[in-house]
Amino acid sequence: MIEVLRMGHRPSRDKRITTHVGLVARAFGAEKIYIPGNDTKMKETLDRVVRIFGGDFQVDVSSGIKKILHQHRGIVVHLTMYGTSLPDGITRIRTEHEEEDILVIVGAKKVPRYIYERADLNISVGNQPHSEVAALALFLDRISNGDWMDMDFGGKLKIVPDDRNKNVIEKN
Amino acid sequence: MIEVLRMGHRPSRDKRITTHVGLVARAFGAEKIYIPGNDTKMKETLDRVVRIFGGDFQVDVSSGIKKILHQHRGIVVHLTMYGTSLPDGITRIRTEHEEEDILVIVGAKKVPRYIYERADLNISVGNQPHSEVAALALFLDRISNGDWMDMDFGGKLKIVPDDRNKNVIEKN
Repeated sequence: MIEVLRMGHRPSRDKRITTHVGLVARAFGAEKIYIPGNDTKMKETLDRVVRIFGGDFQVDVSSGIKKILHQHRGIVVHLTMYGTSLPDGITRIRTEHEEEDILVIVGAKKVPRYIYERADLNISVGNQPHSEVAALALFLDRISNGDWMDMDFGGKLKIVPDDRNKNVIEKN
Repeated sequence: MIEVLRMGHRPSRDKRITTHVGLVARAFGAEKIYIPGNDTKMKETLDRVVRIFGGDFQVDVSSGIKKILHQHRGIVVHLTMYGTSLPDGITRIRTEHEEEDILVIVGAKKVPRYIYERADLNISVGNQPHSEVAALALFLDRISNGDWMDMDFGGKLKIVPDDRNKNVIEKN
C-alpha cells in the first residue's frame, strides 16, 4: 500500500499544484493522500474527482505530520532534489523493504531537516529542479512497474482510449 | 529533437503550473518550450534556472500558436485525457515517425478542437484526470527510454546523488 504526504501546503499559494499532486497520487495508484492543514476546499475538490471517476482514494486534511509519521507502519520515502537516484532507490525498496507499506513525502516549500533524517530513503527523481508533481508520478510509475496503466477505477465516467475522438462512457 | 508548446497559459492563474511544465520539459530532455502570450516574467524564471543549472534549453514566449505550428517540421503530439494509450502512442511514433522532430502540446485550460485535428497523435497518459505536468514527464520519459537520468547539463550548480546529505558542487 502506498500513501502520500503532501507537506507544507499553503492553501492559497499551493492550491493548484497540490490539486495536481493529489490527482497524480490517485491516478498512479496511491491509496491515500494526507494534506495537513485542514484545507477542506482541497478535500472537496479531490473527493469530487473520486466520486465521478471512481476508486476509493482517500483524502485526509485533518491529521498532523507527527501523528501521520508516528502511525505509519512501513517505510518513509522522501522525494527531493537531493537524494539517491531513482533507479537506486527503487532497487533498495525492492530488496530491503519488500512488501512494506510506503509513505511518500513530497514538499511544497522547503522541507524541514528532520524529514531528511526521518526518511528511510531520500530519493531524487533526477538532480535537476523540476516538479514534485512529476517526481511523484515517476516514482509511482517505477514502483508499480507501470501498473497504473491497467487500473480500473470503476467510476461513473470512463474515458476510452481513442486517438481521434472524445470517447466517454457514462454509467447509469 | 523535442519541443513543447504550452497552450492557454494565463500568466496569473497558471504561473506555477506553467513553471513546472517548463522545468519538466527541460529536465526530461526537451530542447525548447513555447509559451505564447508574452509572459516575460515566466521567461525570466525559466531562463534563470538554465543559467544556474546549465544546458541550452530555450524559452520562447513571443511566437504565436499558428506560427509555431506552421514552422514545425515533424510530428505534433497532443497530450490529453482523451487519446490513444501512452504505450500505443510511443509505438506509433517509433514505427511511423522515427527520427522526426516532435512538438508536444500540453494545454492549461480547455484546448481548442483544431489542436485535436492538427495533432498527428492525441495521446493520453492514463485515462484519469491528473496533471499536464505529470503527463509531460511520463511522455518524455518513455520517448527517451529514460535517457534524462544520464543527461549532464554542465551547469554552475551540480547536485550529486546522495541518500543522506545535500551534496552540491558549485563550479568556479
